[in-house]
Amino acid sequence: MKKSFLTPGPSELYFTVPDHLKTALQDHVCEISHRSKAFQDIVQHTTEQLRKLLAIPTNFHLVFTSSATEIWERIVQNLSATSTYHLVNGSFSSKFYDFAVQLGRETTIYHVPENQGFEREILAKPSAAELICLTHNETSTGVMTPLTDIALVRATNPRSLVALDMVSSAPYPALDFSQIDTAFFSVQKCFGLPAGLGVWIFNDRCIEKAEQLQKNKQILGTYHTLPSLLQNSKKYETPETPNMLGIYLLGKVAEDMNQRGIQTIRQETDYKAALLYAQLEKSKVFSPAVTEKRFRSQTVVVAAGEAEKIKQFLALCQSHQIIVGAGYGKAKDTQMRIANFPTHSKEVMQKVADLLENF
Amino acid sequence: MKKSFLTPGPSELYFTVPDHLKTALQDHVCEISHRSKAFQDIVQHTTEQLRKLLAIPTNFHLVFTSSATEIWERIVQNLSATSTYHLVNGSFSSKFYDFAVQLGRETTIYHVPENQGFEREILAKPSAAELICLTHNETSTGVMTPLTDIALVRATNPRSLVALDMVSSAPYPALDFSQIDTAFFSVQKCFGLPAGLGVWIFNDRCIEKAEQLQKNKQILGTYHTLPSLLQNSKKYETPETPNMLGIYLLGKVAEDMNQRGIQTIRQETDYKAALLYAQLEKSKVFSPAVTEKRFRSQTVVVAAGEAEKIKQFLALCQSHQIIVGAGYGKAKDTQMRIANFPTHSKEVMQKVADLLENF
Repeated sequence: MKKSFLTPGPSELYFTVPDHLKTALQDHVCEISHRSKAFQDIVQHTTEQLRKLLAIPTNFHLVFTSSATEIWERIVQNLSATSTYHLVNGSFSSKFYDFAVQLGRETTIYHVPENQGFEREILAKPSAAELICLTHNETSTGVMTPLTDIALVRATNPRSLVALDMVSSAPYPALDFSQIDTAFFSVQKCFGLPAGLGVWIFNDRCIEKAEQLQKNKQILGTYHTLPSLLQNSKKYETPETPNMLGIYLLGKVAEDMNQRGIQTIRQETDYKAALLYAQLEKSKVFSPAVTEKRFRSQTVVVAAGEAEKIKQFLALCQSHQIIVGAGYGKAKDTQMRIANFPTHSKEVMQKVADLLENF
Repeated sequence: MKKSFLTPGPSELYFTVPDHLKTALQDHVCEISHRSKAFQDIVQHTTEQLRKLLAIPTNFHLVFTSSATEIWERIVQNLSATSTYHLVNGSFSSKFYDFAVQLGRETTIYHVPENQGFEREILAKPSAAELICLTHNETSTGVMTPLTDIALVRATNPRSLVALDMVSSAPYPALDFSQIDTAFFSVQKCFGLPAGLGVWIFNDRCIEKAEQLQKNKQILGTYHTLPSLLQNSKKYETPETPNMLGIYLLGKVAEDMNQRGIQTIRQETDYKAALLYAQLEKSKVFSPAVTEKRFRSQTVVVAAGEAEKIKQFLALCQSHQIIVGAGYGKAKDTQMRIANFPTHSKEVMQKVADLLENF
């Protein structure tokens, strides 16, 4: 029986990955030069498939890094001189904040308790910071910020740059890119790919900002400054020898997703999330960790319960060859996190819902 | 007929890689948590196999980054406050220097022309810099610095930290680690692995230096500071979700190399290099680009000739399904680079030697 990884990242490989790996070996994807036309074609294909899948406007650029973690660092280095503002509602938005502190920025933080979202008046609060950082989907707590609420940040702060962490939600959200200036994700979550690759999307305002900082003699980094990444991306290259296999696989899976249709993927995600939340609502043992419905993540469903019950349920799932994620950090034993990514079938999600119902 | 990539990186995959990839999929290497015991075991295995292969002493530590390019940046950030000294004899040692400039260090450079090595008196020159950077094997020019010469740097500069770029030579050189403080390489050269992983080795003096800089409020970076990498490596973890597949494959190939025996690999490398250099010496069309024998690389053999002849010979090789690398940078058309890595068989190297002989 096939093992299903419903863990929130790394997660189950997209079902087409093994075939694409075979083709990659046959086509010598790992052996050709990263400066060859053949590899430029691969980078171009991946870029174009992602642009289509995410409906990225032409004034936004797309480059590759080694992880989303790296992008936290590059964003702070390249898009702020002194001040950043962080909307924190879990461990990952908190780490983004930590990076700004480590890089010596004057940081402001608005913190809500675990498993809670931001009220609209908080998002609509004016900030004097150059850069406002928020996380669309907090993988640690299962809180998803509604896109219409994210728009309030931009509306109130037209002069600040707005950075959106989409690590565990892209390509699910139908993001209106005009509401943000930069967004990013890694590939081992919803894309179902081997870890080791980050995608950084940014607009012309970000380029102007980075160039302004450079003029002011600020050090932006070395090979992975925004201008260096951008310049290389124009030739469909990267400054360093990149994770070529990762870029190839991402293009193939994005193409598969485009063929399936992003609307279908979104509808299926909503359907599968609804299955789980319905059972959690009915359950006498577990409950959705996020009480307010409009903040509930569609891609990482988090359930709360007694530690003993969580342990038993994870073991039960495991006996059915289904691996469900434990809670994160403080909630390690009292929560469980069920990834609901495009590769996870309706059947396996129905199975988990059935296990919840009969538990 | 099998295609052979004698390109100096990315290069031909180590011949066991396709099998290891299959096992990785079966064992869910890309799907398990990067914080799980199962993945810690993988990191431990890779670390131990590399320690054995390279004979790394216990006072040296080993961590993983996304590339050797990244390590250039991390070394300058973490191991120097103000001053670095660079021994430059090609494009890659020059890029290491560029990184130090970009990071605002006071840099000193000693530059020798392309395809030349450093005379002993140059390496034995005292430097006031905190960090001395040199490249064991210049992939761009095919110049390898003898290990006994590298020892002169340490002997003359006991107070400076010595950083050695081994990108396109490790694990070939039998490095005496007491002659340096930090060394690093990437995996798409001699290890024959997909690109997207760097290995950074450093001793306790490097840790003390980084901690001293931190005490002095210097910003060392964020997730990939030396102390952060070190702390995570003690649990066989990485700060971010890393290129897990890359770490797994590196451990498997290092194990394969240990079984083959590092002495055998070194002897075979010398034998294959000798085949090529002998033909280049005899050739009326080509000559070794590095005239002084003691500086000739054993892992990247560079030949010089007229542009038209180089072009013809590369095409001839290609008609035999052998891909040889072009020259680098200015020498793109007038040189060719033949990688001589552990995966390249004696047979294919004999074939290239025969093609040279009959050209």
